Amino acid sequence: MHHTFRPTHYHTTMGPHDAVLTVQSGDSVSTTTIDARGFDHRRVSVSPRGNPQTGPFYVEGAEPGDTLRVTLDELRPNRRYGFCQSSLAANVVDPDYVPELPPPVLVEWDVDVEAGTATLVRPESKLGEFVLPLAPMPGCFGVAPKNGQFLDCAGSAEHGGNMDYRGFIAGTTVDFPVFQPGGCFFIGDGHAVQGDGEICGAGVEISMDVRFTLTVIKGKSIGWPRGENEEWIFTCGNARPLDQALQHATTEVLRWLQQDYGLDALSANLLLTQGVRYEVGNVFDPQYTMICKVNKELLRQIP
Amino acid sequence: MHHTFRPTHYHTTMGPHDAVLTVQSGDSVSTTTIDARGFDHRRVSVSPRGNPQTGPFYVEGAEPGDTLRVTLDELRPNRRYGFCQSSLAANVVDPDYVPELPPPVLVEWDVDVEAGTATLVRPESKLGEFVLPLAPMPGCFGVAPKNGQFLDCAGSAEHGGNMDYRGFIAGTTVDFPVFQPGGCFFIGDGHAVQGDGEICGAGVEISMDVRFTLTVIKGKSIGWPRGENEEWIFTCGNARPLDQALQHATTEVLRWLQQDYGLDALSANLLLTQGVRYEVGNVFDPQYTMICKVNKELLRQIP
Amino acid sequence: MHHTFRPTHYHTTMGPHDAVLTVQSGDSVSTTTIDARGFDHRRVSVSPRGNPQTGPFYVEGAEPGDTLRVTLDELRPNRRYGFCQSSLAANVVDPDYVPELPPPVLVEWDVDVEAGTATLVRPESKLGEFVLPLAPMPGCFGVAPKNGQFLDCAGSAEHGGNMDYRGFIAGTTVDFPVFQPGGCFFIGDGHAVQGDGEICGAGVEISMDVRFTLTVIKGKSIGWPRGENEEWIFTCGNARPLDQALQHATTEVLRWLQQDYGLDALSANLLLTQGVRYEVGNVFDPQYTMICKVNKELLRQIP
Amino acid sequence: MHHTFRPTHYHTTMGPHDAVLTVQSGDSVSTTTIDARGFDHRRVSVSPRGNPQTGPFYVEGAEPGDTLRVTLDELRPNRRYGFCQSSLAANVVDPDYVPELPPPVLVEWDVDVEAGTATLVRPESKLGEFVLPLAPMPGCFGVAPKNGQFLDCAGSAEHGGNMDYRGFIAGTTVDFPVFQPGGCFFIGDGHAVQGDGEICGAGVEISMDVRFTLTVIKGKSIGWPRGENEEWIFTCGNARPLDQALQHATTEVLRWLQQDYGLDALSANLLLTQGVRYEVGNVFDPQYTMICKVNKELLRQIP
Repeated sequence: MHHTFRPTHYHTTMGPHDAVLTVQSGDSVSTTTIDARGFDHRRVSVSPRGNPQTGPFYVEGAEPGDTLRVTLDELRPNRRYGFCQSSLAANVVDPDYVPELPPPVLVEWDVDVEAGTATLVRPESKLGEFVLPLAPMPGCFGVAPKNGQFLDCAGSAEHGGNMDYRGFIAGTTVDFPVFQPGGCFFIGDGHAVQGDGEICGAGVEISMDVRFTLTVIKGKSIGWPRGENEEWIFTCGNARPLDQALQHATTEVLRWLQQDYGLDALSANLLLTQGVRYEVGNVFDPQYTMICKVNKELLRQIP
Repeated sequence: MHHTFRPTHYHTTMGPHDAVLTVQSGDSVSTTTIDARGFDHRRVSVSPRGNPQTGPFYVEGAEPGDTLRVTLDELRPNRRYGFCQSSLAANVVDPDYVPELPPPVLVEWDVDVEAGTATLVRPESKLGEFVLPLAPMPGCFGVAPKNGQFLDCAGSAEHGGNMDYRGFIAGTTVDFPVFQPGGCFFIGDGHAVQGDGEICGAGVEISMDVRFTLTVIKGKSIGWPRGENEEWIFTCGNARPLDQALQHATTEVLRWLQQDYGLDALSANLLLTQGVRYEVGNVFDPQYTMICKVNKELLRQIP
Repeated sequence: MHHTFRPTHYHTTMGPHDAVLTVQSGDSVSTTTIDARGFDHRRVSVSPRGNPQTGPFYVEGAEPGDTLRVTLDELRPNRRYGFCQSSLAANVVDPDYVPELPPPVLVEWDVDVEAGTATLVRPESKLGEFVLPLAPMPGCFGVAPKNGQFLDCAGSAEHGGNMDYRGFIAGTTVDFPVFQPGGCFFIGDGHAVQGDGEICGAGVEISMDVRFTLTVIKGKSIGWPRGENEEWIFTCGNARPLDQALQHATTEVLRWLQQDYGLDALSANLLLTQGVRYEVGNVFDPQYTMICKVNKELLRQIP
Repeated sequence: MHHTFRPTHYHTTMGPHDAVLTVQSGDSVSTTTIDARGFDHRRVSVSPRGNPQTGPFYVEGAEPGDTLRVTLDELRPNRRYGFCQSSLAANVVDPDYVPELPPPVLVEWDVDVEAGTATLVRPESKLGEFVLPLAPMPGCFGVAPKNGQFLDCAGSAEHGGNMDYRGFIAGTTVDFPVFQPGGCFFIGDGHAVQGDGEICGAGVEISMDVRFTLTVIKGKSIGWPRGENEEWIFTCGNARPLDQALQHATTEVLRWLQQDYGLDALSANLLLTQGVRYEVGNVFDPQYTMICKVNKELLRQIP
């Protein structure tokens, strides 16, 4: 079944808030998200800032210990105005270089969905009319976190959250561990395009029209978000420092290969030794995000 | 001028050792490297283990404060026998998962340069006859380090060293800061193919025939190794934790964009905010390696 | 005014839960805490595990932006049975050493408040009848966290939480930033004695009788918990890695010296350069805790 | 036997340089060290800067795999002029706070050995005539490093080096692993007094008269420097981040307790769980130093 949902309020924490909509496993939802500062498609402020989320969506039958599969069917900026910061965050450059970062100004982008481009509008710079191809993605999405917590949408953990990984484009499927009845799915913080690491603390921030499908996988337990697209399977580890995020993501791939791909410990290790790939999700948020990936061509070689 | 050099001894530290050959800026050299444990193309032990290096090559005119440009013209495994470890290193998985890593066994690969493949030979596993495409690269190369040090070939720093980045394939140009007269270029530790991070502590270790060109860029000073291929420019930051390696690499790109691409601080920052890419070099060695990249399509947009 | 409060339920998250008692600024409270696994003075399970907290105590007049001063008047184990783990946590030893950690067994201690000792009872070991002096402290205490979050009692942040610093003994005063009306003070997770770092993941876990005084400091804003005893002032930085915890704690001392001790930036820096001391709170929990200290003898030298 | 040695040159790398003096195991040496920038007791520049070392002292019979025991018999500043930096290093404060660090100026101290004090002379500040008690120590000392390396005196590793731990006062005994024949002992970089962490990048830098005793412990192999004074035994872990330095130091104590104190794995772990103490050596140098300590009162309880 397909639902069209029009949000009337938003949450800046993820947790077992009252559901805005209850759906069946397999249902899809069309709705909208507002930008990281709480502005909607009209550029009207409709929520306090802090990556306000649309949701939660309660999925019937999802219980702690299950997995919630989210298919990102469509992610489409619904206005032309995007913005970000102008300087890198102090924590991504050498400490002694911090005083050389230029003073921050607001950066404005013209987001043209038809043309598939984000064009730098302001400030004036030596880049001229700088253009990037769109690759819209939700900076923050996921489910209610473990232990009954309500976590703000700055951070991330096993439940997802503000992972700010530019690979979460339309067509991607993401599995989350379920910690609360109904899972409680949230989505928001759209980025029209984002560099690796979200190193200025923002993508090209934008409001979006989104469509997604929610499916419960009963009795399947996972440790960290797991994603899949046409070419890759990948996991998300969220922690600081990046080394620990990488440990989480790598361990989760080892578990996944043994859980779902028929490998034993030796074979799973062997495959990764020379076959693994990593990507940096974010290195700005309270928890950094490291992606550990395996190409499906390698998986297809498994007899 | 082109030189053919046949090594008679190797070094497991990088520093101002006596030169094995003196060349002019712009000269190229054909030579051979042995594997990480000191075995040559015949699988005969010709050096103690520890990433023994061929070199150093002294480049006339290179002085501290200059840059040494190395073009990796050809990198070709010269035997069929490759090897690596079977299990991930303890430091790349969750600490509590370490006891679940399988006991280490030697892994053997058949490296077929004509076919362009590395095929898993031993141990038997559920992967069957697992095949990876070759992408030969030197795990360890660079120049004599700063401050008159002799550093072992396990680690890396501003001078390069054991960066274990799989992107150093033939056709890549790499610039190193010169710290000693002549630069003192070394190369070794060939990998027929390597996953991101060198997470088992090895690529498919192999001896190689190599050809490279050495050019002095007088009066140009850089902070960290800078690379370039057809599509990308990139920098290498070497440190622990990965966060610090990322800071070094990112800061070096900021400097590079301002030094060579006509950008001021604001423009260099702006370009990176949504345009940066990262890759993980290694997360096994005493110093980790993070790669910070910019696609040349973005650079071509600079007016 | 002094209150005696007898808890009937406990919380394993810190956040703006319904207050169990409302007090005036300056009031003191006598109450009890249960152990980390939810067992009380009779060794009866009265709560789910996870550092269950007594509270929250609502302090009239405390508003976001104020500071809540907590004086730990008395901390007294109220049973003889204490316990901890037998092996160090995997994350505090070299990754390659993890397989050498012995298999975990429950460790039991006899806590004798009159004698002021904790005596190792089980398991048998080459330590014989090992005795440590008591130094009772709450592993986890603090206020409701920022941004309306409910955070579980495993972790810590600006609001305090599971800092596991053995310096929080009776007689210590601790200031917390107020993020929610009333502050919402919690306390629990008593340790009869604890080593630095809580490196097995536990102190000698115990239930306690506690007495504390709560005072609102109106209009005073602080960044991280600040403590004081007869000899020292200190701050708590909570984060991973330890480097970042140290940055938070050090920055907070710099701010404190300028806010309360009449120093300018230069003088505050000068004092710390050769006068600073650090202690490790915990290196086990999701966030590590670093303590940055200044001896009051140094402060008394300020003209 | 006792030697009096008057240095004529210094080294800014530690490695198997030609010995300046050969001694027998058990001999003691009186000599002098110059300050971190190469100035001697007359404030005359006699070496390039970079923690120039007096030595190496070759100890007959020391072979790789042995341990070299160094007793710091006397450490006495031999001039009144000490200096340090005025601001904390950028890496020990929050990245966003870096721009608030005051501009660096040279700080000068009057070091009065008779009075046992260091008095702040310049710059003028709100601290007035700030006085610290002397606690002289060598910032950098140790032996030739592993693998035939020559490492600069900025960093530290298994061989010791620039650990900048304020606990290395006279009366302390320090054991180093021997990596080169003769051990090759170096000492320099005196600090009249130093705060934890050397967080401005310097102690009160000074030249010194030093006396030490060198003893070979044949056939005893250790992993990291181990120290001992009247009250404590301690180990030094040198690495970044601080978490890894702590892992090295903790693991070395576990090994030590089993190697020398008759404990098995379980007992060694048990003792540390509630008995361990940590101190921060330095958090400024390329490698940070963490100290892991055990009080001798606890060791005396071992039956």
